[in-house]
Amino acid sequence: MTAINYQFSGEIDSKKQYAEIIEKERMELLMRQFKLRDHNVPVIIVLSGMISAGKSEIVNLLNEWMDTRFIETHVHRPRTEEELGRPYFWKYWRRLPGQGETGLFLGSWYTEPWFKSLNGDISEKEYLSRMSDIRKFEEMMAADGTLIVKIRLVLDQKEQEKRLKASKSRPAYSWRMSEDDMNAGFSFQKKMEHTDRMIALSHTEASPWHFVDAGNSRYRNLSVLQLLIECFERHLQKLQNANGNMVTYERPLGIPNHLATVDLGKTLDRSLYTELQKKYRQSIYKRAWKSHRKEKSVILVFEGADAAGKGGTIRRLIRALDARLYRVIQIAAPKGREKTTHYLHRFWTRIPRAGFITIYDRSWYGRVLVERVEGFASEAEWQRAYDEINQFEKELTDSGSIVLKFWLEISPDEQLSRFRAREQTEYKNYKITDDDWRNREKRSAYDEAVNEMAERTNTDYAPWHFIPSEDKKFARVEVLKIVNKALKRI
Amino acid sequence: MTAINYQFSGEIDSKKQYAEIIEKERMELLMRQFKLRDHNVPVIIVLSGMISAGKSEIVNLLNEWMDTRFIETHVHRPRTEEELGRPYFWKYWRRLPGQGETGLFLGSWYTEPWFKSLNGDISEKEYLSRMSDIRKFEEMMAADGTLIVKIRLVLDQKEQEKRLKASKSRPAYSWRMSEDDMNAGFSFQKKMEHTDRMIALSHTEASPWHFVDAGNSRYRNLSVLQLLIECFERHLQKLQNANGNMVTYERPLGIPNHLATVDLGKTLDRSLYTELQKKYRQSIYKRAWKSHRKEKSVILVFEGADAAGKGGTIRRLIRALDARLYRVIQIAAPKGREKTTHYLHRFWTRIPRAGFITIYDRSWYGRVLVERVEGFASEAEWQRAYDEINQFEKELTDSGSIVLKFWLEISPDEQLSRFRAREQTEYKNYKITDDDWRNREKRSAYDEAVNEMAERTNTDYAPWHFIPSEDKKFARVEVLKIVNKALKRI
Repeated sequence: MTAINYQFSGEIDSKKQYAEIIEKERMELLMRQFKLRDHNVPVIIVLSGMISAGKSEIVNLLNEWMDTRFIETHVHRPRTEEELGRPYFWKYWRRLPGQGETGLFLGSWYTEPWFKSLNGDISEKEYLSRMSDIRKFEEMMAADGTLIVKIRLVLDQKEQEKRLKASKSRPAYSWRMSEDDMNAGFSFQKKMEHTDRMIALSHTEASPWHFVDAGNSRYRNLSVLQLLIECFERHLQKLQNANGNMVTYERPLGIPNHLATVDLGKTLDRSLYTELQKKYRQSIYKRAWKSHRKEKSVILVFEGADAAGKGGTIRRLIRALDARLYRVIQIAAPKGREKTTHYLHRFWTRIPRAGFITIYDRSWYGRVLVERVEGFASEAEWQRAYDEINQFEKELTDSGSIVLKFWLEISPDEQLSRFRAREQTEYKNYKITDDDWRNREKRSAYDEAVNEMAERTNTDYAPWHFIPSEDKKFARVEVLKIVNKALKRI
Repeated sequence: MTAINYQFSGEIDSKKQYAEIIEKERMELLMRQFKLRDHNVPVIIVLSGMISAGKSEIVNLLNEWMDTRFIETHVHRPRTEEELGRPYFWKYWRRLPGQGETGLFLGSWYTEPWFKSLNGDISEKEYLSRMSDIRKFEEMMAADGTLIVKIRLVLDQKEQEKRLKASKSRPAYSWRMSEDDMNAGFSFQKKMEHTDRMIALSHTEASPWHFVDAGNSRYRNLSVLQLLIECFERHLQKLQNANGNMVTYERPLGIPNHLATVDLGKTLDRSLYTELQKKYRQSIYKRAWKSHRKEKSVILVFEGADAAGKGGTIRRLIRALDARLYRVIQIAAPKGREKTTHYLHRFWTRIPRAGFITIYDRSWYGRVLVERVEGFASEAEWQRAYDEINQFEKELTDSGSIVLKFWLEISPDEQLSRFRAREQTEYKNYKITDDDWRNREKRSAYDEAVNEMAERTNTDYAPWHFIPSEDKKFARVEVLKIVNKALKRI
């Protein structure tokens, strides 16, 4: 698949005629912007192109043609300290448009790898891995209903040189040129090669590239305008036909019953419990500071049956940590803006910066647990979530973080007796709700979901640990032991 | 007013008895946390104290005692590059708790000025100005219904020295100690002097300081626990009695009719319009890049009657700017989380970083315009907003930003004809709503609000410019002229 050249279909005879066409077409665009908004579609426009091709002018025009209330323009800048301390895509997750909004990216996730490959600052392996991350990112967004339009403005070598010369003689524009100093020293040819390769590696069905000739600015403007109208229209039509096109997923056959292998008989006596807790805590305390020094992040995910003891286990764990180093995030059902963005958005935007620890009391696994069982996510949504989650955790660990996942398991009988005890204890009363009793009824559906989750998301880089939690003391110490061991590797 | 020493009222005889008291009291705290949540109260807890006083332990305990789902802990770190490029309080506005949430600050807005004054890195004038900003920040939060509890854990010199010595001999803790290296080299006495002064300058009725003796950890824990219960309870009682206590504001007498002085007869002929636009645009383009180099931010606020031409004026202005440098933010009625935070929150969190331009199409002045006229804000709220806005703009300009405010004025007749024209033009159709017609009916109420706004928020550092906009060409060029002149000063 090669990029698509897009060209305005008509002829422009005069300035007046140009203005008339613009006037007519911008309304077509505006109407489609509103329709996409009615359908809650997030739109991403990636605008890239050569120096002097007129990217900035196109940004201004788009803000003029469309309803700017729903557009946010993001201009590329080198990653800040905060951004460098996290996976590459963190910066972009924070800037994603919500439903009905448009994110206009002048410079995007392509900019950094492009410059790095041009300057030879990135290994081949890393470059290919980054491009693969980009494809997966765009595929994930597209699968979630985002419309992505990628535009590249192109000039031939002669035209570009002419423009560069002209802009140098005009003092008003000389300021900008130095912005582009980083391009200096590379030939047109060399830059084209790097661009072509990048395009080839990221031109996908979910998110194709469109080339627009920027040699004549009126034709360029109208090409972009018509291209957007076409892409918007095509997406609207796809939405209308969507119901007929159910995606079917292959279900893995014969998922092992991982839960059945958890030995719930494990116990720990009190004196050993006290002794081991103390030992592991001192070690974890020290190692957490050490990983802070080494700027490594740690992400701990706690999932488990209701009343399995997640809260208590986390409380014992944080006693081993200096409050300066960790953060506990409790995840409830999404609300407000969280409901209008990709389900991973609220997790991506809250990952720890380099050197810190984030503990999730429930997590992104809600997608394949409660959302699957309760039908809050469609089958297509939770089915593709396994890959999306694996990719998310891969990007976390690629950037140097440690990811540990715990499933706390108890028997139905033990759960019942804990529910009853909670109802008796005044200050624990608030912890037991009708939902808990309802979930209990669905135990077998939850067990199936847990087994599939374990089967499909237990990776080398982010392994699951199933913790027998019938005996709270055993579970707490087991978690401390695993955390301690993982920190040792840093 | 001096800080309040708070001491647990009972006696603790044994570990067992201590555990029993904790068990009982934490429930009292939890219940009050829920009640404050029912009343949508945001809670800020500032936790400060000497090294080794046990701040980290208290953070862990509070997360254990209260419902952590509604607590977010913020630990002090030096300001990042992103934070340094903005006014001091930007960092904290981003971290404010919403309604029903608790923000627990271990290290806070006090930390940086404290270290700077200790190290002699801040002038007396700057220090006093920062402390004044702190008082105003806390007063503003308190006035908006936030409960602020400021706690300082104190140790006597002998006890602190003992703990420091002990922690040095224990390897597990030695990691943390070096965190506090920045304290090194200053005597206990000297640090106390700086602390005392800071407390004296920030111990206000709206937000008093509470001292807790941290010499004995059980007493310390119980003191903090009881102190919080008392503060929460007092706030709940204040809420119940609130209706009897209406605050009355002094209205300024005889506000001049600023609007009447706007000469709506001003016009500009087309050829001069074209010529001047070109001239100013070239100059603004160049100067905007220059201010970018100098890392100065520019904040442009556009307000005006409906159909006065804000959008068109902004579009002409941005043609003079490189898309890399500016951002247009259109402000509509607050929604979602915006409704549960201080009204300035969404503006504070979106101010430009150093070197960039933000253009607000409507702004924080909505508080004293539409919210006042339509009754969305109570009189107490919009009355105190003038001072709050002045303070906000002062902090912006203190940090090196330029703030310009434009009011675009048209006559009622011209407005009517523009409304009618909009209804005729297909692509402008969406711009005219029933609200616009309704607002028109309230012209005199709006005029009164505009005049009072002009009278009370026209400051040296952030002046208002009233732009006659009956003739769009005149208005557009006038704005370009003023922006150009302001950029020249950078």
